[in-house]
Amino acid sequence: MKKSTLALALVLGLAQLAIAQDKPKQNPESSEIWEPVPRVVTPGELSPGTASGTTAPSDAIVLFDGKDGSKWVSVKGYSPDAWGGVTEGSNPWPVRDGAMFSAKGASLRTKQEFQDFQLHIEFRTPDKVEGNGQGRGNSGIFLQGRYELQVLDGYNNPTYSNGMVGSIYKQAIPLVNPSRKPGEWQTYDIIYYAPKFNKDGMMAEMGKVTVLLNGVLVLNNFNIKGTTEYIGYPKVQAHGKGPLLLQDHGNPVGYRNIWIREL
Amino acid sequence: MKKSTLALALVLGLAQLAIAQDKPKQNPESSEIWEPVPRVVTPGELSPGTASGTTAPSDAIVLFDGKDGSKWVSVKGYSPDAWGGVTEGSNPWPVRDGAMFSAKGASLRTKQEFQDFQLHIEFRTPDKVEGNGQGRGNSGIFLQGRYELQVLDGYNNPTYSNGMVGSIYKQAIPLVNPSRKPGEWQTYDIIYYAPKFNKDGMMAEMGKVTVLLNGVLVLNNFNIKGTTEYIGYPKVQAHGKGPLLLQDHGNPVGYRNIWIREL
Amino acid sequence: MKKSTLALALVLGLAQLAIAQDKPKQNPESSEIWEPVPRVVTPGELSPGTASGTTAPSDAIVLFDGKDGSKWVSVKGYSPDAWGGVTEGSNPWPVRDGAMFSAKGASLRTKQEFQDFQLHIEFRTPDKVEGNGQGRGNSGIFLQGRYELQVLDGYNNPTYSNGMVGSIYKQAIPLVNPSRKPGEWQTYDIIYYAPKFNKDGMMAEMGKVTVLLNGVLVLNNFNIKGTTEYIGYPKVQAHGKGPLLLQDHGNPVGYRNIWIREL
Amino acid sequence: MKKSTLALALVLGLAQLAIAQDKPKQNPESSEIWEPVPRVVTPGELSPGTASGTTAPSDAIVLFDGKDGSKWVSVKGYSPDAWGGVTEGSNPWPVRDGAMFSAKGASLRTKQEFQDFQLHIEFRTPDKVEGNGQGRGNSGIFLQGRYELQVLDGYNNPTYSNGMVGSIYKQAIPLVNPSRKPGEWQTYDIIYYAPKFNKDGMMAEMGKVTVLLNGVLVLNNFNIKGTTEYIGYPKVQAHGKGPLLLQDHGNPVGYRNIWIREL
Repeated sequence: MKKSTLALALVLGLAQLAIAQDKPKQNPESSEIWEPVPRVVTPGELSPGTASGTTAPSDAIVLFDGKDGSKWVSVKGYSPDAWGGVTEGSNPWPVRDGAMFSAKGASLRTKQEFQDFQLHIEFRTPDKVEGNGQGRGNSGIFLQGRYELQVLDGYNNPTYSNGMVGSIYKQAIPLVNPSRKPGEWQTYDIIYYAPKFNKDGMMAEMGKVTVLLNGVLVLNNFNIKGTTEYIGYPKVQAHGKGPLLLQDHGNPVGYRNIWIREL
Repeated sequence: MKKSTLALALVLGLAQLAIAQDKPKQNPESSEIWEPVPRVVTPGELSPGTASGTTAPSDAIVLFDGKDGSKWVSVKGYSPDAWGGVTEGSNPWPVRDGAMFSAKGASLRTKQEFQDFQLHIEFRTPDKVEGNGQGRGNSGIFLQGRYELQVLDGYNNPTYSNGMVGSIYKQAIPLVNPSRKPGEWQTYDIIYYAPKFNKDGMMAEMGKVTVLLNGVLVLNNFNIKGTTEYIGYPKVQAHGKGPLLLQDHGNPVGYRNIWIREL
Repeated sequence: MKKSTLALALVLGLAQLAIAQDKPKQNPESSEIWEPVPRVVTPGELSPGTASGTTAPSDAIVLFDGKDGSKWVSVKGYSPDAWGGVTEGSNPWPVRDGAMFSAKGASLRTKQEFQDFQLHIEFRTPDKVEGNGQGRGNSGIFLQGRYELQVLDGYNNPTYSNGMVGSIYKQAIPLVNPSRKPGEWQTYDIIYYAPKFNKDGMMAEMGKVTVLLNGVLVLNNFNIKGTTEYIGYPKVQAHGKGPLLLQDHGNPVGYRNIWIREL
Repeated sequence: MKKSTLALALVLGLAQLAIAQDKPKQNPESSEIWEPVPRVVTPGELSPGTASGTTAPSDAIVLFDGKDGSKWVSVKGYSPDAWGGVTEGSNPWPVRDGAMFSAKGASLRTKQEFQDFQLHIEFRTPDKVEGNGQGRGNSGIFLQGRYELQVLDGYNNPTYSNGMVGSIYKQAIPLVNPSRKPGEWQTYDIIYYAPKFNKDGMMAEMGKVTVLLNGVLVLNNFNIKGTTEYIGYPKVQAHGKGPLLLQDHGNPVGYRNIWIREL
């Protein structure tokens, strides 16, 4: 084959590639919604010197008490496919100052699986602000391992509204934005009822979630349509109980005081 | 008239009375439901020395800050009929130690009226336990002046389940009983969406309420059927905005840190 | 004993009876709600000569096809307690003109039990009007054997609104009254999702029902609080699948074209 | 320039093109969901010779009675933007055999606007099958002019599940597929409650829709997230009452027996 023939072949190959890219394609950006922008609310404060929400009620399962990370295991990636089948190791996230911090390359899931629950969890994005938008303090809490309640630095950090802190990722825009400053501990109080599926595998009843961020209502009985995808639309797949999953997204986000009550 | 005739007349009179009592009659007890009994949960605690929930977020209306009771006026009784038309005086409840305490004979309502809202309110039943059941630490928070979220000493104090603390009075049984001890401050966090009425005056959509008592879910998106009556069934009457009403039921119950966010 | 003494004894006896009646008591009347009265709507008509709704879709279970009543068995009474434990006989209701007619003393329940479903059923109250209010053409369809959708002659027949045709008995007032005349066939189209109970036996999610009467919406996604009692308040008891139950209330009410689709 | 250099330039150019296509882009296909495929149900039939659903109840507004199309006006396009501001002409759709047929280039909207309603409407896709997927018998019913209930030939006509007949376009997959054959009249019975918006313009409560297609439940109290876009995600914009809109999509789809009841 002559050089020019080779070049032509390359050209044609790339042309085909380009044409292929005109075919149906799903970009991350196509599922971003930037408006409306929830208005900013400064959340209230606990008494001076109080840095945490309440401790666990007596019927709660304490998932992290500030020291013991053994109720969690490591998973590679954070999609249902990923955590579904991959070999799991012990929890690799470092514990310091009573918190676990996300470590690159490993997300965490609980060993235990849950159906309907009330969940309290506290998080802290880095005090040293680096990056912006989705690159600043990004993590996430996956309900039943499938439905992500976004964790992100939401303080003066514009991003798409359905991907900000308080959103069900790329599904629900929070009612308001009650973010605390970077480096401050923040609380999520979550009420979750799992979706119901019928014998055909259709979602007969959507999952429902109510969320308070720093004590301020951001989602009220929101109906979850399906999985929270980075690219493309929510997917519906019948399932039973599922774990909690904490995402590592490359930013060291801390978690502490995690407890769950089965409803 | 002979004696026996008199006696017969008396007999017939009483017989009529007895028959009359077979006619429709509504007793308070007929709307009590005693089972199931929600299981007891010991709520979590804030850090030692912290006696209160969070202060108001920036978009909240502070209804009581520990000192100023001027956003409330006095009403006689606590039924919609009562507060609807009666002359109102200034707030007669004494303020001490940063709290307002219910005073005999006067309930309070806010001057302002509300539709959908998030409400935080703290209450304290007397530390000296007197009476029992509905007679111990009884008060109530009437949403839109019509729908009572019960306030009652719920610590080792058997009563009907749909009238205990955490209930929508005589309508909803709380999921669990996370009461604190008498004399301890307790928190209510309430999410309320008002009912919708159609042009016929029918309730097209029921009011909905989610309640956390001491941080523990007791009601989830509960559908309110109508007014919360002491005697008889819920009544449905179309209405617009309404006030908050704090009931005086003869027991000195304290309230503090009251804020509301319109949703 | 002298007459007057006898009379006195009678008096005292009745007085005791009267006093006894001051004690807590549950009357049927205490759960009647007479207002508002749903406005009358004249339903539409099928083409001339068409007397019935649609036949069953392919995935429906035909519970009565106009001839075969063998999918039903006899039960004594119609409370959950009654049908729960009583010896059952074969279906005693007479079949004529393609319909089954309720016969005194026996209600019917399906052999099969159901969870969530769409139900089509047609009924006919007697063309010869006898009695009034609850005494005219009274029957009922008990969803899962527990929750009664009222069947009653609703044509110029005043009764309490929460007990008229289209009501969930003593719980829900229908939005309007689209009754046909006595003796005419009427259709119910019902969408029902069963309540969900948690591990404590509490009703975590209420049952929900949408009802079209003669093609006109009378209930929209109504939340069912508990059993539909004649006397007293709805009761909550955890349960699984349940049968359909057709009530005999002493009036010969006809049923035909009954099919159900599991959802 | 040598041939090989030219070829390299071409290669690089195409590579740039390919990279450019990695930028945000919204394709119609990215919002298609092909699975699960609702199972086929054969709907029931009315009595032989009966071709229509019920006529209008007495409180309905008859929007088309088989003859008079004057309650509709012409609009260009069918997006909210289009019908919002464009000059409107009289209804150009031809009426024949008691039905209106969509005509190329013009969609229709009602002069009157609605909030919550029950809607009955019958449609008929062409009996001569042409095209496939979205190209066969395509039209649509836009609730409040914004939320499309899809109309499409659904008989042996594979397409994406969230775009088939019975779907809320690109939002909701119908529970089953009870389509009739091409050319046969089909019925939609729709219960719709409009979304509620708060003072911030956020959707405080989603719109809700229940749909029976040919008498078979396809959507139950489905929560509508926002507008039904061909390309991209649902949009949320606060609005009041809105019209019904019937879409012209280039296929002659017939409509008849249209009536609406305000709820």
